Amino acid sequence: MHTGIMELQAEAQAFFEGLQSRICDGLEAADGGGRFRSDGWQRPGGGGGLSRVMVDGGVFEKAGVNFSSVHGELKPDFAASLPGDGLAFFACGVSLVLHPKSPRVPTVHANFRCLRRGSALWFGGGADLTPYYPEREDVLHFHRTWKTACDRHDATYYPRFKKWCDEYFYLPHRGETRGVGGIFFDQLPSENFAFVRDAADAFLPAYVPIVARRKDDAWGERERQFQLLRRGRYVEFNLLYDRGTVFGLKTDGRVESILMSLPPLVRWEYDPHFEAGTREAELATTWLKPQDWLGAG
Amino acid sequence: MHTGIMELQAEAQAFFEGLQSRICDGLEAADGGGRFRSDGWQRPGGGGGLSRVMVDGGVFEKAGVNFSSVHGELKPDFAASLPGDGLAFFACGVSLVLHPKSPRVPTVHANFRCLRRGSALWFGGGADLTPYYPEREDVLHFHRTWKTACDRHDATYYPRFKKWCDEYFYLPHRGETRGVGGIFFDQLPSENFAFVRDAADAFLPAYVPIVARRKDDAWGERERQFQLLRRGRYVEFNLLYDRGTVFGLKTDGRVESILMSLPPLVRWEYDPHFEAGTREAELATTWLKPQDWLGAG
Repeated sequence: MHTGIMELQAEAQAFFEGLQSRICDGLEAADGGGRFRSDGWQRPGGGGGLSRVMVDGGVFEKAGVNFSSVHGELKPDFAASLPGDGLAFFACGVSLVLHPKSPRVPTVHANFRCLRRGSALWFGGGADLTPYYPEREDVLHFHRTWKTACDRHDATYYPRFKKWCDEYFYLPHRGETRGVGGIFFDQLPSENFAFVRDAADAFLPAYVPIVARRKDDAWGERERQFQLLRRGRYVEFNLLYDRGTVFGLKTDGRVESILMSLPPLVRWEYDPHFEAGTREAELATTWLKPQDWLGAG
Repeated sequence: MHTGIMELQAEAQAFFEGLQSRICDGLEAADGGGRFRSDGWQRPGGGGGLSRVMVDGGVFEKAGVNFSSVHGELKPDFAASLPGDGLAFFACGVSLVLHPKSPRVPTVHANFRCLRRGSALWFGGGADLTPYYPEREDVLHFHRTWKTACDRHDATYYPRFKKWCDEYFYLPHRGETRGVGGIFFDQLPSENFAFVRDAADAFLPAYVPIVARRKDDAWGERERQFQLLRRGRYVEFNLLYDRGTVFGLKTDGRVESILMSLPPLVRWEYDPHFEAGTREAELATTWLKPQDWLGAG
């Protein structure tokens, strides 16, 4: 157990600052050429953050890794929906979305965060993978990495958080998941800081080997056009359903940092159809349905 | 006054069907080459529609003109937010969004509709213009056309509906209107059918002369990239705030017809900046603020 909630909050903040830096270093190495620029910002109501963005790298067309640490007063009706007491809040974490140039390399999202309201502190987070041309070994590697990190702390975490991820990253109007899932968790009690650290540090090993395997795979205009079309679903999810995005925008968060998650180029086509048996058709029919990737247990 | 509500409903439906056809004919003539394809659809709960789409025309990169006439049972909690009685509803209308290829030609949206709940029938609608490189004479022509149509029926309509439009098509997170406005109205009593017909038939004269004036204006990669970026705001508005889009998607409307409004190609860039004094900078600072285009009165 921790000595006190304010100490834990400070430890969490230091961990997330370091996490952003480690992840950006790891992604620059994986990219093999691109560099993150840094953009510090202050929040008028209290706190601020550091947005780090890479554009037109070797692998990443647009990669945003955001750190923020904000505090202030909650609006009473929003406060009522949260654990804890009073209106004072603190929120701190890292959020990232990576959009590779190659349609062979999956898009990925991850977020790890700590929230405090009054005397209650909890953690949330997760990561999900959105491939355009999925490869089974990549999906299994992603899920296995999260399962290993989860199992070190609680054997119930991976099955619970995997299911939570499938339910959260779902587009009801499309009848599809956003991608092939991962893990998602929220309102984990403060005792779980060690788990959150392990999970956050599992991001690079969960994703970078997939980049390494796929970044030199060939692709052409057909694959690129399909990727741009599928990126539209990412936009639909983030603007229609993502609680973080919608909440941030509606509560005067920093717009450019919140919308860093949107893809650099996106296409919408009226009622597109793909011939049965093509990989484009199979993405929705085979891969974007929740399933037990790692087999029973 | 009309003899009965069911007769009025039938007249409105016939009017909107004809309106779609007239508008598509007028737009094909303005496009000078493109043709609308037609896609009929049925709604499982009752009714259906006809989606008409033009892609890669001479002027229009993507133009969608949708007719729908649907009926059924409202969910009780949604019904409670509407005039009328009971759960039986009927909704019928035309909705269109046109995305020109040239950044010199404004995007435009219009919608005219009739709704009935039980024994109450009302109209709603409007049109708004979203230029990328606005020209004052175009904005004035657009607003003057709507003012003329409004003034024939009620001198209070244009100022009221113009203000309503500025308030509705507003992106609070950007602090910008979607474009230079137009008119917007809702829950107009059934006596206003003659006004709605006049307004709907003012769409082509409000917009087509702007197309004719601008379609041959020169543009290059700079203007195209700015257009793609600004189209992102259109997506943000439609998915975050537009009641029709969000309601349609959340109540099992036909997704492809609802999302016909989204642009064919869109770009998001992290924190873009435009030099003061450029037309790109002036779009947001000068044009996307509500203002009295037609002068006092």
